[in-house]
Amino acid sequence: MTNPTNFSPSCPVPLDKVQKWDIETDVAVVGFGAAGASSALEAARGGARVMLFEVAAGNGGASALSGGEIYMGGSGGTPIQRAFGFEDSTEDMYQYLLMSTGPNADAAKVRLYADNSLEHFHWLTAQGVQYKTSYIAERCIEPLTDDCLIWSGSEEAWPFVERAKPAPRGHCPKFVGMGGGRHVMDALASRVVEAGVDVRYNARALALVADHNREVHGLIARIDGEIRFVRARRGVVLCAGGFIMNREMLKRHAPNFLRPLYPIGTVDDGSGIRLGMSVGGSTINMSECFVTTPWYPPGSLVKGIFVNGRGQRFINEDGYHGRVSNYALQQGGDRIWLLQDQATYSASPMQTGARIEIGAAGDTWEEVERELKLPDGSLVNTVSVYNHHAAQGTDPLFHKAAKWLKPLNEPPFVALDCRIDYCYYATFTLGGLDTLPTGEVKDEDGAIIPGLFAAGRTACGLPRYGAGYSSGTSLGDATFFGRQAGKRLASTLK
Amino acid sequence: MTNPTNFSPSCPVPLDKVQKWDIETDVAVVGFGAAGASSALEAARGGARVMLFEVAAGNGGASALSGGEIYMGGSGGTPIQRAFGFEDSTEDMYQYLLMSTGPNADAAKVRLYADNSLEHFHWLTAQGVQYKTSYIAERCIEPLTDDCLIWSGSEEAWPFVERAKPAPRGHCPKFVGMGGGRHVMDALASRVVEAGVDVRYNARALALVADHNREVHGLIARIDGEIRFVRARRGVVLCAGGFIMNREMLKRHAPNFLRPLYPIGTVDDGSGIRLGMSVGGSTINMSECFVTTPWYPPGSLVKGIFVNGRGQRFINEDGYHGRVSNYALQQGGDRIWLLQDQATYSASPMQTGARIEIGAAGDTWEEVERELKLPDGSLVNTVSVYNHHAAQGTDPLFHKAAKWLKPLNEPPFVALDCRIDYCYYATFTLGGLDTLPTGEVKDEDGAIIPGLFAAGRTACGLPRYGAGYSSGTSLGDATFFGRQAGKRLASTLK
Repeated sequence: MTNPTNFSPSCPVPLDKVQKWDIETDVAVVGFGAAGASSALEAARGGARVMLFEVAAGNGGASALSGGEIYMGGSGGTPIQRAFGFEDSTEDMYQYLLMSTGPNADAAKVRLYADNSLEHFHWLTAQGVQYKTSYIAERCIEPLTDDCLIWSGSEEAWPFVERAKPAPRGHCPKFVGMGGGRHVMDALASRVVEAGVDVRYNARALALVADHNREVHGLIARIDGEIRFVRARRGVVLCAGGFIMNREMLKRHAPNFLRPLYPIGTVDDGSGIRLGMSVGGSTINMSECFVTTPWYPPGSLVKGIFVNGRGQRFINEDGYHGRVSNYALQQGGDRIWLLQDQATYSASPMQTGARIEIGAAGDTWEEVERELKLPDGSLVNTVSVYNHHAAQGTDPLFHKAAKWLKPLNEPPFVALDCRIDYCYYATFTLGGLDTLPTGEVKDEDGAIIPGLFAAGRTACGLPRYGAGYSSGTSLGDATFFGRQAGKRLASTLK
Repeated sequence: MTNPTNFSPSCPVPLDKVQKWDIETDVAVVGFGAAGASSALEAARGGARVMLFEVAAGNGGASALSGGEIYMGGSGGTPIQRAFGFEDSTEDMYQYLLMSTGPNADAAKVRLYADNSLEHFHWLTAQGVQYKTSYIAERCIEPLTDDCLIWSGSEEAWPFVERAKPAPRGHCPKFVGMGGGRHVMDALASRVVEAGVDVRYNARALALVADHNREVHGLIARIDGEIRFVRARRGVVLCAGGFIMNREMLKRHAPNFLRPLYPIGTVDDGSGIRLGMSVGGSTINMSECFVTTPWYPPGSLVKGIFVNGRGQRFINEDGYHGRVSNYALQQGGDRIWLLQDQATYSASPMQTGARIEIGAAGDTWEEVERELKLPDGSLVNTVSVYNHHAAQGTDPLFHKAAKWLKPLNEPPFVALDCRIDYCYYATFTLGGLDTLPTGEVKDEDGAIIPGLFAAGRTACGLPRYGAGYSSGTSLGDATFFGRQAGKRLASTLK
């Protein structure tokens, strides 16, 4: 057990095997992405001595790779929402998030998040995250400009629109180009240093230290190659990302997501989750992942229809790109097409980057059907039923909103090839440790593991259901619930 | 910790908190269903002193509720298979099971099971399980007679038939009527008593006892209301069923399966799984369940087609009833119909029992479509495409085999109503502790938890993928891998 080669994140070290602590702190945070930074900040500002252990040589993790978008609203709207006339209600935001986070949505987390989202906006700006007062009405994945407010979910789409009044809630930082997550991380990381957090890079958490009652007292870390016993008097916060880079874990827990070829992550080896499991922490939603291909913009493509390898539609196409892509992955087989006519088709650099190419073209849908080698009548009948109803402004099968309905009857026709095994489908895991809104890790019976917290993708947070994912909820969840864990830990000092 | 009201299956008791052992044994088996019985038998016959703890007042668990069917074959065929000309090869059985147990199939378990299936048949008969030399060629759920061999999976259906030569492998015991699981359990239970296993009823396992290295040394049991500390010198085998009766666990791990109204189980409160997790045991496939409604017999119904609430087909209808039902549950919404014409329709008592009623009827498919309130053209086009190809003896969309293909063109037409929220859809969980073929429980990094074993639905065994389930694999897995755990434990005595 004291042989360093034997440490495993899945096996805790007993407290009484620790001969001496090399390092002592109040709070040990594992992982310096957005969740770890937010957690460390709140704990330090609450008076705790905080150390932050990051396995890489720099901060950011997957948060810094992201677009930096954060899902916020409610309370009458953020300043950006209000500037463009969106008086977003907390209840609408709550209902949308509850519905879109799936059949085992965490109502307590959704409530806390919706109630305090406006406060969180102000907190982020106070940390130095900058937002331009601007709004993009057109569909986009993330702005190529430094603009802010976008529609980043399925708020306007059925069935969500029936329960909650829609509002755009995706807030992108003032950062030109994609990758605004770096801007968010830079701001948070500067504040972390100013707050006196002791940051250790090249520091891998090897195992937790726990006592007989499975209370967590610290961790074993390898810092710059040296084994260090770290006592954390108040607790350990696991913010070490998800497990998309651990192919073995992915195969065991989410095998369907081995198929998309583009995992999004940095380390994300599941070690945070494994550390939590080692002391009885329960995991949920381990088979759920975010997955998407950028099939829009332009928004006109939403007027097309998606079909699977049998020529069947499977979703209303006016939902969020990731919702549609998640359904695409569930269709069985790799073949997915997006059908367009002369009036709706338009290429964008994003599709080119994603290798979404024209799979077939023809002057009739029969020609397209033949070129795709689909059985006689399969695709043609699908288009025929769609066109018949679209001409009347309805989509009785999938409920796409009227503004996106137009018969696909202007030749030439094309089928965009959105193959799972060829196009860019980005993916990351959503399952993780089950936590209270405070970040405290629960066991399978709902009891708290003393001294153990988790946030970000190491936890199963708001974004837990791929088919209902909205952009900005991962970073929103990571920063918001990272803060809750830090505050809860600081409160134990009183 | 010594306050009995505080025991939780999710929280182990530290070894050094045990002041004295009330009971000592070599092997403690938790749960007296088929897995527990098989495990206890092999351990006892291998020379181990074995105690078996069953929370109920009698033996059997969910095994005794089942049809008693066991999936066996390979090695040239069981005596029953051979009597009817099925010279089943081990490789065909291996390939079928590998493919049908899903994207994270356990090749090592499938290999061991297929290689030793014939031996397992002889072992079962040696225990007193009786099989009549008879074969039912017609599709059935389980025989109402005492007949034996049935087709209990999707062996003859696409895509399985392309990889492995089909054979019927469902072996039902010689027992008149449904519920032959009682016969299997009676045989095993008699042998357990004869083998000298010390069986305690009304005995609930409250928590495991583990040391600093998380090695399991025993358990705390409440036996007839008294708390007892039980030392298990060689190990504990968890055979306490799945978690279909624990609605909270179901909501967290498999929320889609809260919808079927008929859970199959007895205790099945997930306590076995929780005990394993408490010492770092890893769980997999927690979102997977078996689910089925008895939509056949008669087999002529297989010539009909299933459609979802949008009038779309979704599967080749010649697969196993549970495979088709699993796909039905994935369609979104509750509405599922099975379309038949005058020539193919026939009612059976089983459908009546399952409340599968006629949802609509008409002299044209247009009439049926209207009566089901489906959008114009949706159902009609589905039938039209199907009929067009069926007339040519092909099903290019879903690959139903030619012998089941017939245009549905003889009025009157009916739509059998197979609603998820009304009909009898039986369900139980397939996820559980990840184990080696020996039954040893693994942690998330693949290391063994010393002294801990699991079998039956407490483990994630062969049957782990609802969409590929075959009848007889649960009881087959429970008895076969229960035996492996018992043998492994006995081997530690040498």
